[in-house]
Amino acid sequence: MTAPEVGFDVLLRRGAARLGLLRTAHGAVRTPAFVAVGTQATVKSVDPERVRDTGTQALFANTYHLYLRPGAERVAAHGGVHRFMAWDGPVMTDSGGFQVFSLGASIDHGVGKVSSLFPGMEARPPEAAPRLSAAGGSLVRVGEDDVVFRSHVDGSLHVFTPETSVRVQRQLGADVMLAFDECTSPLHDEAYTRASNDRTHRWAERCLAAFEAEPARHGYPQMLYGVVQGGAFERLRRESARTIAGMPFHGIAVGGNLGRTHADMHQVLAWTVAELPASRPRHLLGIGDVPSVLAAVARGLDTFDCVAPTRNARNGGALALRDDDGRPLANFRRNLRNARYADDARPIEEDCACPTCARFSRAYLRHLLQADEPLGPQLVTVHNLAFMARLFAEVREALERDAYADLVERWLGHLPAPRAAALP
Amino acid sequence: MTAPEVGFDVLLRRGAARLGLLRTAHGAVRTPAFVAVGTQATVKSVDPERVRDTGTQALFANTYHLYLRPGAERVAAHGGVHRFMAWDGPVMTDSGGFQVFSLGASIDHGVGKVSSLFPGMEARPPEAAPRLSAAGGSLVRVGEDDVVFRSHVDGSLHVFTPETSVRVQRQLGADVMLAFDECTSPLHDEAYTRASNDRTHRWAERCLAAFEAEPARHGYPQMLYGVVQGGAFERLRRESARTIAGMPFHGIAVGGNLGRTHADMHQVLAWTVAELPASRPRHLLGIGDVPSVLAAVARGLDTFDCVAPTRNARNGGALALRDDDGRPLANFRRNLRNARYADDARPIEEDCACPTCARFSRAYLRHLLQADEPLGPQLVTVHNLAFMARLFAEVREALERDAYADLVERWLGHLPAPRAAALP
Repeated sequence: MTAPEVGFDVLLRRGAARLGLLRTAHGAVRTPAFVAVGTQATVKSVDPERVRDTGTQALFANTYHLYLRPGAERVAAHGGVHRFMAWDGPVMTDSGGFQVFSLGASIDHGVGKVSSLFPGMEARPPEAAPRLSAAGGSLVRVGEDDVVFRSHVDGSLHVFTPETSVRVQRQLGADVMLAFDECTSPLHDEAYTRASNDRTHRWAERCLAAFEAEPARHGYPQMLYGVVQGGAFERLRRESARTIAGMPFHGIAVGGNLGRTHADMHQVLAWTVAELPASRPRHLLGIGDVPSVLAAVARGLDTFDCVAPTRNARNGGALALRDDDGRPLANFRRNLRNARYADDARPIEEDCACPTCARFSRAYLRHLLQADEPLGPQLVTVHNLAFMARLFAEVREALERDAYADLVERWLGHLPAPRAAALP
Repeated sequence: MTAPEVGFDVLLRRGAARLGLLRTAHGAVRTPAFVAVGTQATVKSVDPERVRDTGTQALFANTYHLYLRPGAERVAAHGGVHRFMAWDGPVMTDSGGFQVFSLGASIDHGVGKVSSLFPGMEARPPEAAPRLSAAGGSLVRVGEDDVVFRSHVDGSLHVFTPETSVRVQRQLGADVMLAFDECTSPLHDEAYTRASNDRTHRWAERCLAAFEAEPARHGYPQMLYGVVQGGAFERLRRESARTIAGMPFHGIAVGGNLGRTHADMHQVLAWTVAELPASRPRHLLGIGDVPSVLAAVARGLDTFDCVAPTRNARNGGALALRDDDGRPLANFRRNLRNARYADDARPIEEDCACPTCARFSRAYLRHLLQADEPLGPQLVTVHNLAFMARLFAEVREALERDAYADLVERWLGHLPAPRAAALP
């Protein structure tokens, strides 16, 4: 199924970890790699040329958002998401499922409830839907065939199917598409998670069929990844991984609930990866904190997307390895709004060569943030993207040199938590 | 008084208009030129490297804002505003006066009223002060010696004098500083305007004395411009221009009320310029619309600052010479939020080579604006700065070639209004 020009090569293995090359129609991604989030076809506040300057290799856009606004056909008419947003590197899109459920406030346990809005259908009234309250009520209804949800933009009703998701991602033209799945939450019990898991697998088959039936729109080949779900239940995770791995997807994404602790995540990744073929690329959805990344790379994950580096930047949270005195920074984050930076002429990180650290002091960045100047979030986002790119460049170099333990020591050695789990 | 390395050269005259070179410690500005506004030491949302890419030669920062936040001494400790904001080109600062009066909501006519807050002093209670209402009452009190005002940031009371203004601008380190003045409004009568004018002239003397007494802080020479006021009253304008021109300022800024119509502005500029020496640079404060710029250049003005190109960009107002059918655009502005652009794959202007037009469609820009994505205002601001730089580059070229009438025809020929007034 893989067209010759796109695919994945494992270049080198170190334990479960690997160095790889994800070849797409818009260039290759050296893995392990961070995929920066550009939800609405823009990495918030950063010019795509500057995104490139940070060392960012690939972007992750959200199907749900672009489907609602500006509309996928509109993006298609522009030649796809790359040309629309002037980013000529690789792009991934999700299936739309995660946002359908999360923005639809779907986290509840009422499987089989009948909604007054959709009588006779399996409906899940939201526990809380602040984003939708102004839109006149919010609801996501998950059926065997489709999902009905309200737009967070204008409250309009939409029906999404696996086929819709594939068609929309064909219109958007992402290099890596994801199969439509239901993302279960830690609040779902095993019975619900099993039923959902089985449905996600049936949807995966339909996505593959639709991918074959719906040709690429923009003259270049796209890849389709299946998504492993199964919550934090060993049997369900292993079963999902085996099932998805048994289908002819170009790659495997690991989604959903990874448990409540760092140790749980390790466990879930261990179960999952044990069932996956070594030859295909593995993406971990929604994870991007340093300890998790280092652990997941050691478990054999190849690519990662996460909103945290860009979202935190907008609140003044600048990523840094250590504080100036060498002590750990909570979550590797320097809060630039803090008054201690008001007269601090140093850059965010003294050894960082990013376009922000090369030119601007903490004091200037704090000034911009305090004055609500949009350049503040922009410059901090640039640094955080460069930080993530540097982290992954060091990861790749450490795997190459077979020095991953040294890397883990360098990045996590100052933290009190046990670190052995991060070793390959 | 002019240090040899800074100053102004008139290179060529065409009628009253002239081509010039404003030499500053941070490079020369080819005039006529637009000075882009960067109120809080940032051109809102645009990286200074990108500002440079637009062809922008110089920036205009606001003393009042930087004095209040982050504080002028803090900027001084960083080596001045250039290093603070990573802009190594020329910077102008205003005196603080305009914002003191406008943000202090000073427009009233109650000269000589006694405020309950400042008993015994000449006080001017505001007619309306929405920006300050939350700060527990707002007031600007103009005295002979000083101005007392409340901060729009935190409501604190501040005293500004001509000497304060000079000291703060020395701390900020702008290449061109302005003398502290009172900016009168069209609502002020001739008697108030005359009294204010006389006070502004006394303040101008104090600014010059302070400029001599307060040495440059950052190791390079700065220039000080005097400000001509006088409202729309011929006698007062001429008197102010003669008085300010009689003082050893490096240049002359024309401020305040220029009347209510385009014709009034012409009149005021004619009276003013008639009294000014030809050798010194002339800055027109707060004017940046195309017809006014072309007219004022013809009257002999050299530099211009205006918030409109950047402020309008933030609302989706993109500058363009003509609509696609060749017809005039109201105020040379394309409203990119308009639904007609939703599927428009063309750039803002088809013949524009700016970093925005080279890469992005109207449809993409509209999407960003509709989705409240900060990249939208950023990209439109970049275009508008490039538009202003292009306008002035064409102005300089037209003066060089002695073809200003052709330029005016090209830029204003499609407008219904009489255009002869714009000719030199």
